[in-house]
Amino acid sequence: MFTLPLTSLVTLAAIILFFVMGLRVAKARGTYNIPAPATSGDPIFERHFRVQMNTLEWLAMFLPALWLGAIWHSDGVAAGLGLVWIIGRIIYMVAYVADPKTRSLGFVVQMLATLSLILLTLFHIVRSFL
Amino acid sequence: MFTLPLTSLVTLAAIILFFVMGLRVAKARGTYNIPAPATSGDPIFERHFRVQMNTLEWLAMFLPALWLGAIWHSDGVAAGLGLVWIIGRIIYMVAYVADPKTRSLGFVVQMLATLSLILLTLFHIVRSFL
Amino acid sequence: MFTLPLTSLVTLAAIILFFVMGLRVAKARGTYNIPAPATSGDPIFERHFRVQMNTLEWLAMFLPALWLGAIWHSDGVAAGLGLVWIIGRIIYMVAYVADPKTRSLGFVVQMLATLSLILLTLFHIVRSFL
Repeated sequence: MFTLPLTSLVTLAAIILFFVMGLRVAKARGTYNIPAPATSGDPIFERHFRVQMNTLEWLAMFLPALWLGAIWHSDGVAAGLGLVWIIGRIIYMVAYVADPKTRSLGFVVQMLATLSLILLTLFHIVRSFL
Repeated sequence: MFTLPLTSLVTLAAIILFFVMGLRVAKARGTYNIPAPATSGDPIFERHFRVQMNTLEWLAMFLPALWLGAIWHSDGVAAGLGLVWIIGRIIYMVAYVADPKTRSLGFVVQMLATLSLILLTLFHIVRSFL
Repeated sequence: MFTLPLTSLVTLAAIILFFVMGLRVAKARGTYNIPAPATSGDPIFERHFRVQMNTLEWLAMFLPALWLGAIWHSDGVAAGLGLVWIIGRIIYMVAYVADPKTRSLGFVVQMLATLSLILLTLFHIVRSFL
């Protein structure tokens, strides 16, 4: 059975971070009085909500890229880039809620981590065909 | 080749359930006259839409947790917890559309199933490092 | 190690397409002056945004179905259906932005590709139990 322990651990960390973002949205619903199913009505609530939604969009790219990187290159390198992604996402979350204009740094960090995983995998796949 | 038949079957059931939620949103677009790309304008339509979106958020946590649980623990236990997740999601879907205030039961059931898969995997990974 | 090269390549292509959709949303934010965290306010911006969100919903069904199809049937057939999915998604993207009423063709193409992967996998799983 293939297990890839470090990549598995980073995957768990990423989905736990996403779970925490969901808790922050739920809490913001109470604080700013935005009952479900509404998703707008207060600017701070909308920042929490957009942090969660943008992270969801990126999980759809990051998790496949992470596992492809682990399978095609190595568990350690994929997990390392995965850790960079998580750090970028935490910076993004904190900065976006404080001021949406400052969200670029964390965003770029997690984007570069994801693109690195994609390019790393692409390199190995192309080489396997040669 | 590793196949994990029960986990594969539960994965198919989860994505078919999500497909059905999409059909319900499409039908609600017609019934409540909300042409795309709008996603608001009628409270019942918004409930259907939020059921689908919330399930999407949880699929991003559930599917990785399900497969990690299957790989690190067993096909049968992971699939069993996956079945609990699906039942929780169906309860959530029906209750949310009837009355958003009653959505907690189904939500908690699927959350506990997901957290169980995360903890089960974490236990095995940590043990593998010792 | 199992690698499934064609399925890996199609997975990369799908997430790169999704990345491009994100870039188009970011560009539309500038063009139509919709600063984050808002996701509405201009009909053309909303089309770009809905293309991305609908693709996210379908990635949650397509990627698991693609890999189940590759594992249970074959790398080549799964990747072929995955390529059809990508073509359908590109048609959908272009048509939706031009006129939301013309989004059906691309949508149906990618839906049939996903359902084919689901049915193919279901066939093999059921047969494995007999």
